Amino acid sequence: MNNIKPTIEVCFSPALLHLYNTAGAIVVIIDVFRATSTIAAALHNGAHSVIPVASVDECIQLGLQDSNHITAGERDGKIAEGLSYGNSPLDFPPSFIQGKTLVLTTTNGTRLLHMVQNAAAIITGSFLNLDAVCQFLLNSQRRVLLACASWKDRFNLEDSLFAGAVIDMLKGSFETNCDSARAATHLFHASHGNYLSFLTDSSHYLRLSGFGLKRDLEYCTTPNLHPVVPILKGRALLPLQESALF
Amino acid sequence: MNNIKPTIEVCFSPALLHLYNTAGAIVVIIDVFRATSTIAAALHNGAHSVIPVASVDECIQLGLQDSNHITAGERDGKIAEGLSYGNSPLDFPPSFIQGKTLVLTTTNGTRLLHMVQNAAAIITGSFLNLDAVCQFLLNSQRRVLLACASWKDRFNLEDSLFAGAVIDMLKGSFETNCDSARAATHLFHASHGNYLSFLTDSSHYLRLSGFGLKRDLEYCTTPNLHPVVPILKGRALLPLQESALF
Repeated sequence: MNNIKPTIEVCFSPALLHLYNTAGAIVVIIDVFRATSTIAAALHNGAHSVIPVASVDECIQLGLQDSNHITAGERDGKIAEGLSYGNSPLDFPPSFIQGKTLVLTTTNGTRLLHMVQNAAAIITGSFLNLDAVCQFLLNSQRRVLLACASWKDRFNLEDSLFAGAVIDMLKGSFETNCDSARAATHLFHASHGNYLSFLTDSSHYLRLSGFGLKRDLEYCTTPNLHPVVPILKGRALLPLQESALF
Repeated sequence: MNNIKPTIEVCFSPALLHLYNTAGAIVVIIDVFRATSTIAAALHNGAHSVIPVASVDECIQLGLQDSNHITAGERDGKIAEGLSYGNSPLDFPPSFIQGKTLVLTTTNGTRLLHMVQNAAAIITGSFLNLDAVCQFLLNSQRRVLLACASWKDRFNLEDSLFAGAVIDMLKGSFETNCDSARAATHLFHASHGNYLSFLTDSSHYLRLSGFGLKRDLEYCTTPNLHPVVPILKGRALLPLQESALF
């Protein structure tokens, strides 16, 4: 029997991703405000898949290819010109998104997702699917990198807080010798599980609440509303089927 | 009267330095284990200056130029081949270092120091000169960037903890909208001021204590043993004279 525990590490910014060995690891892309929250909501609400794309133009082009494609994305808190919907997790209820493919353009999360090389699997995480992500990581028993999308490469508080929540749930089952993971755990403990109030003075909260998105922010910090594991297959994120585990 | 407070930000890694505007700012280079601790100790103990250099070869060359030059530096916890001393702050008591120039090669801290562009001033900070650095920043009333040397570009706990200690001392006098600064402050609070015990599970503590350097680590986490502000003039760090303040 093999008693060596897999390792877990945290990368605080896409600009630091090259320091980590993603080959053979499970990489969890984290963009709490709001890409990976919206991805969890859309897939749990019945979307067929989510295609993350980097640019508005690419989003528009993919939208034109198939009438089942919904284009969505924001720039500076408003629906981007040429797209149909914003990137709020509240924009995609089951009555609307069931069976559709969401083509979503975001800046930070999408770029990071496309940067990851040779991972065993790429999934997305947010408070909305916290327990589902942790259960998947526990089941997989592989090395894990929690990769924070950050904000234009700058460290952010919400993604690192989420990383800390994951590490706390996985403690005992994974090893770590990573100061980013230790710091994320300290942030998690400092929050006392009150994610929203912990984040109310963060840069991203201040920016997005200034756009009138407080309801979104409250939603994005509510754990486990959307228990799904979005996993990248080709260019699309699909809801993981339990039978599809390693 | 101008009531606008200067801002303070924290950069967690040299690989993120390009995200910050250092022009006109005071940049505090932080390499707690152990470059900036050793610099504080040497200058406070009477060294004429400290010249930080990136390579062992450069260190050797500078050592040959002047009999008053002391060459020092470690690689993997041992005195580097061709140099005379290690980079422990305990290696440079007044009886030895008085009036000498210390040519010090370190990897992380030196590289970061050389990367900073157009700053109003570059100083070095560590727990050994915590209060002196904070007093200088308070007196200067300029924008501040606390720049962590990290470990081979990876976030580390000791430099970010020190950044949090500085921010806590300066609160009320500076503004910040920087999540790295917020996270550093949370780390500082989590430490309850017990820096050494907070750091005993950090990567760098584990690595250096494995080299038998526990006494160094304890020394480097003791506040204010060496109240001096090392400031870069040309290629050398000199102890700031009070009359030389802005």
